[in-house]
Amino acid sequence: MAAGAFGFKGCQKIRGPQIRTLLEAKDFILFDCDGVIWHGETAITGAAKVVSSLIRRGKNVVFVTNNCTRPRESYVHKFYRLGFTDVLLEQIFSSSYCSALYLRDVVKIRGQVFVMGCDGLRRELQGAGVPCVEEADEPDATIYDCALAEDVKAVLVGHDDKLTFLKLAKASCYLRDPECLFLATDNDPWHPLSGGRILPGSGSLTAALEVSSGRKATVIGKPSRFMFECISSQFSGVEPARCLMIGDRLETDMLFGSNCGFDTVLTLTGVSQLEDAQRYLDGEPAADRGLVPDYVVDSVADFLPAFEELDDEQSD
Amino acid sequence: MAAGAFGFKGCQKIRGPQIRTLLEAKDFILFDCDGVIWHGETAITGAAKVVSSLIRRGKNVVFVTNNCTRPRESYVHKFYRLGFTDVLLEQIFSSSYCSALYLRDVVKIRGQVFVMGCDGLRRELQGAGVPCVEEADEPDATIYDCALAEDVKAVLVGHDDKLTFLKLAKASCYLRDPECLFLATDNDPWHPLSGGRILPGSGSLTAALEVSSGRKATVIGKPSRFMFECISSQFSGVEPARCLMIGDRLETDMLFGSNCGFDTVLTLTGVSQLEDAQRYLDGEPAADRGLVPDYVVDSVADFLPAFEELDDEQSD
Repeated sequence: MAAGAFGFKGCQKIRGPQIRTLLEAKDFILFDCDGVIWHGETAITGAAKVVSSLIRRGKNVVFVTNNCTRPRESYVHKFYRLGFTDVLLEQIFSSSYCSALYLRDVVKIRGQVFVMGCDGLRRELQGAGVPCVEEADEPDATIYDCALAEDVKAVLVGHDDKLTFLKLAKASCYLRDPECLFLATDNDPWHPLSGGRILPGSGSLTAALEVSSGRKATVIGKPSRFMFECISSQFSGVEPARCLMIGDRLETDMLFGSNCGFDTVLTLTGVSQLEDAQRYLDGEPAADRGLVPDYVVDSVADFLPAFEELDDEQSD
Repeated sequence: MAAGAFGFKGCQKIRGPQIRTLLEAKDFILFDCDGVIWHGETAITGAAKVVSSLIRRGKNVVFVTNNCTRPRESYVHKFYRLGFTDVLLEQIFSSSYCSALYLRDVVKIRGQVFVMGCDGLRRELQGAGVPCVEEADEPDATIYDCALAEDVKAVLVGHDDKLTFLKLAKASCYLRDPECLFLATDNDPWHPLSGGRILPGSGSLTAALEVSSGRKATVIGKPSRFMFECISSQFSGVEPARCLMIGDRLETDMLFGSNCGFDTVLTLTGVSQLEDAQRYLDGEPAADRGLVPDYVVDSVADFLPAFEELDDEQSD
């Protein structure tokens, strides 16, 4: 068992008994959310049962999402609404929450943060006591004549469906100050919508700002290890070898797992497909191997038979 | 003379007699505009006299600008307004004009172009008979529910001070079709404003769209050679060895000159400084040598004494 444990990353398709053995070897189960346990406002069939079965069996279950559009409180409501009724606030690690921790606890920011992102991101920062520049409602202002705040010590970019040229220009001006930090909640390039449409992600807006500023952003979300540091600081005894990362995106979830030393499971209900993983497995450079999942399942619902067997044993 | 002619690119600072020898060896003088002959609405002192002196001496003078915000007609007015009274429409090669030529004559576009840029760019395309998607005035539309045109065969990105998230999202959706071309008027990362502020350039918006679409844009403006092809198609007998490119930006103007086989002059009235050129000259990789100017002047006004000497000779 455990191809991953022997250093062989091979997109191994696994089923009931193998999943059971894998889960027995792990204490911490990390789930991505969108494309893994839900699609927007629809839960993936069986996902809520998988999560509650893991929790009931004493596993530490945490949710690690690059979605930065809402504060954690709002996530708790969403989990409940979609039938994940036993998920608590402290199990949720979003890139907005981890950005707030980074600004408050790691860099101990003194001054304001200019947020190029949604209100939810701003609310998460404010909830952590990190002050944000209030955007004045000035529809006719331009970068030639608008006010710029004096004490901006960080620009934080996230998903921003209210992006305007003025916001991008202001952020570019703030980043002229080399002492102003440049952070991105995550680097997701785009997100799938229904009907073949896509939504540009934080990575798209970050790229715009990287070019206009000539600087590179520090990325907080997956695949950066920082989210694991947040988890480790709030749960005791987290050992990478006993963690399993389950996600739908090679470039974020699988690479995050590899970067942290976890075994990884790709679920095919989201963005990345088996062929994508195979391309990274077959191709050069070898550095891309971190994007290859150890294991593959069609859906997290594939975990259910593993619990049934366990239940059978327990009821024997 | 002509360090450039011997393949030695060396930021050589030149003055009156050397400038005179250089100009005598050239038939075509190519000027960038902003930072070279004007700053916004203010002409650089002496620039208008330099341009008219060159024209009077029978040189072919052309203006090669990555500014895509206005159609050529509007440039003629600007030249006249700032004292360049003998500049004609056919001397002006802007990235918006060359984009229109590319769409009409090179790819012979059948279908509409989605423009992420200013009205001036759209007007230039329409003037060349290239149809553009009309943007409906729908302030509450989102990418989830907005209309998308059926026959978009190219997305063209330029400077867009009215950029919104919806425009970026629409462009990203159109680029899902592999038959939809992806063009950028230019790749300028930012433009200087007064008071230390900056304006994100087309290159910034292009980067956002490259990330959200996972594709690379074809760049029309400098440093791409295409603008030289436009000039060659409209003037006969353009020999690269007899062309001189004068600009203020290493990454666009100097590299464009190098890419086309011209000698190049950096003028220090704009974005790039001598130290920037020196860094490219001293640094690795050797590929960056194309960014190093052959010659450097403080301002195009440094050309004036060369004409005075010529005038003296002619009046002898």
